[in-house]
Amino acid sequence: MKISKKAAAVAPSATLKIDSAYKQMKASGLDVVGFGAGEPDFDTPAYIKDAAKKALDTGFTKYTPASGTADIKKAVAARMERKYGLKYDADQVIISNGAKHSLYNSIAAITDPGDEIIVIKPYWVTYPELIAMCGGKPVFVEAFEADSFIPKIEAIRSAITEKTIAIILNNPSNPCGCVYDKKTLEEIAELAKEFDLYVISDEIYDELDFNSEFISFPTISEDAKERTILVNGLSKSYAMTGWRIGYTLSSKAIAKAMSSMQSHMTSNPCSIAQFAGTAALEGPQDDLNAMIATFAERKNLICSLINDIDLISCVEPKGAFYVFANISKVKGKKLGDKEIRDSLEFADILLSEELVAVVPGAAFGNDDYIRLSYATSEENIKKGLGRIKDFCLKLK
Amino acid sequence: MKISKKAAAVAPSATLKIDSAYKQMKASGLDVVGFGAGEPDFDTPAYIKDAAKKALDTGFTKYTPASGTADIKKAVAARMERKYGLKYDADQVIISNGAKHSLYNSIAAITDPGDEIIVIKPYWVTYPELIAMCGGKPVFVEAFEADSFIPKIEAIRSAITEKTIAIILNNPSNPCGCVYDKKTLEEIAELAKEFDLYVISDEIYDELDFNSEFISFPTISEDAKERTILVNGLSKSYAMTGWRIGYTLSSKAIAKAMSSMQSHMTSNPCSIAQFAGTAALEGPQDDLNAMIATFAERKNLICSLINDIDLISCVEPKGAFYVFANISKVKGKKLGDKEIRDSLEFADILLSEELVAVVPGAAFGNDDYIRLSYATSEENIKKGLGRIKDFCLKLK
Repeated sequence: MKISKKAAAVAPSATLKIDSAYKQMKASGLDVVGFGAGEPDFDTPAYIKDAAKKALDTGFTKYTPASGTADIKKAVAARMERKYGLKYDADQVIISNGAKHSLYNSIAAITDPGDEIIVIKPYWVTYPELIAMCGGKPVFVEAFEADSFIPKIEAIRSAITEKTIAIILNNPSNPCGCVYDKKTLEEIAELAKEFDLYVISDEIYDELDFNSEFISFPTISEDAKERTILVNGLSKSYAMTGWRIGYTLSSKAIAKAMSSMQSHMTSNPCSIAQFAGTAALEGPQDDLNAMIATFAERKNLICSLINDIDLISCVEPKGAFYVFANISKVKGKKLGDKEIRDSLEFADILLSEELVAVVPGAAFGNDDYIRLSYATSEENIKKGLGRIKDFCLKLK
Repeated sequence: MKISKKAAAVAPSATLKIDSAYKQMKASGLDVVGFGAGEPDFDTPAYIKDAAKKALDTGFTKYTPASGTADIKKAVAARMERKYGLKYDADQVIISNGAKHSLYNSIAAITDPGDEIIVIKPYWVTYPELIAMCGGKPVFVEAFEADSFIPKIEAIRSAITEKTIAIILNNPSNPCGCVYDKKTLEEIAELAKEFDLYVISDEIYDELDFNSEFISFPTISEDAKERTILVNGLSKSYAMTGWRIGYTLSSKAIAKAMSSMQSHMTSNPCSIAQFAGTAALEGPQDDLNAMIATFAERKNLICSLINDIDLISCVEPKGAFYVFANISKVKGKKLGDKEIRDSLEFADILLSEELVAVVPGAAFGNDDYIRLSYATSEENIKKGLGRIKDFCLKLK
């Protein structure tokens, strides 16, 4: 029986697939080192779990308003004001089942069939899929390692057509770990104004910025704020990946459209997770700060170990918890009889031969790279990179 | 700035809207009686909450596979075998963020633009909205009170066109409370086979069947099973509305398509809710049985009180926790100067004058009715129906 064209066209998330293969190998007892995970290896802080228990004990287990409780909306708005001086009303906040859901809502709220949305490449795997699921067309603008993966404004400009409705930014970026500078953000805001475009600013890693340079897109100007759909969530900054709390901040018109869609598609995110999420935002931020410091140390470690390998190199990331490592020198080399022709084969052979899981760059639109997440212990980083080094030494 | 046509066309959920108005009035201290809620007034059973606490304590707070954990899939499959003798493999089970999400996935997996899906009217508010959001067209087949709201098979047959791809059934039904008899289900299965249609069987209220007559659609035949996408969830039967755990059982091809879509749109449902949901399905079912017995008593009470009012009447529901009460005799009557012209005005005036919240039948496609949920205490049922009786006596 038939499957809809859109459903048939969707590729399952490549990053989740690799993480799942890694977890299966690990569960079967293999000493595999995983650099695939897009989630902090820390446990959710205790004060957040305590709040969840309070939600359970007080029977906060019923439907909430479909777009989230008044409390968590208030807590999100308060965070934006505290951290960025940005003022949002509670009815500009929509709470969803994780930031993926927030992104889906954002794209679905603005995209008609045939509309084009500009995506910076290397891109996070889910952007093009969601755009296509909404009937739109992703238009890619390549960013290069030589520019620390920050796209050139002329390249964005020349990708704009009559059909362009929005630009998606991921800042800090997955997979590149770059953080956008103020000048580039200002130029993008100008461009968005000139062509009347939305900017979907996915700032899920905004807390994970090692140099405190992060600039939230709507702070650029009032006009930029009005055309921004800002996507964020609690998964990465509070080690709450499993809980599924994402949020958007947008104009009231967009928020209303997203709220209506969500009231039918899923209704409210888990009430217990919302209650705990409110506590996460309002509580002490010490765990968060400790986590950032740890990621910064690991980042230094993994970069030095990668750059110590002859065939592989990386530019130092400024945020998030990924390194996008250049493997172009490996392509064409052989392990015994097996030729490594692309990033997928690199990842496959590395996993089967050396028990190290990485994500092939092809999943992010650039086959010359692999992505390594350093959301894992120093010990694993040393062990895994040691194996990758040995692996590269065997290549002919 | 523009909103997409699909997003602009979505009406927010009418039932959630009324429930929200009721909750606001109640929060402001008014002695309002609510018959709007589509959720059990019972708390989530303690053994389920204990499991959630265990999930928190053991750090089960990370990403799970996007379509649900192996454990909860196994528990769902085991339930279907235990209750109905139906055999499903774990990879035919998809766990989603509530049954609304399961329904969305089901419709999105099969619907291309212009496809028609048959919806029995009175319908649950969300069906036509989800079909439209997926680019499809809902085609309504009316069911009548005289037939206990079970549709006539000839009516379904004559609604089928070349573009028809599926029939959605809600069994037991919201808002009517009807439970489909075996003969009708067999006839629908025959029709589905004849025209090669999917049947989306929304059985979210399957545990709430007062006469133990409930027949799950895929038990009708092997062919019926192959073409059924069965939707269910834990919200109604385990008083877990806020937790958001829904599920589908379908062919592997459909399950794979839904899993891929979900991996991008939301990823996994809340890990803690999944862990607790597994316990709900595997644990003692005493709370569930006690809940059903209570609903049965309330159903008898509310029906006798409704039928004791001259201007209003109802057929006795066989399942779920709603009465669809006929108010056609009220239409055209006046309260003072105010004429009650439709179900919306009936509900509005009843709420403002008598502080009783009901859902207008117009939301379900039949303006001659109102829906009353009896997921509320006997005391509230007596108080609320007393007020409705007084209200009707005032009408001229």
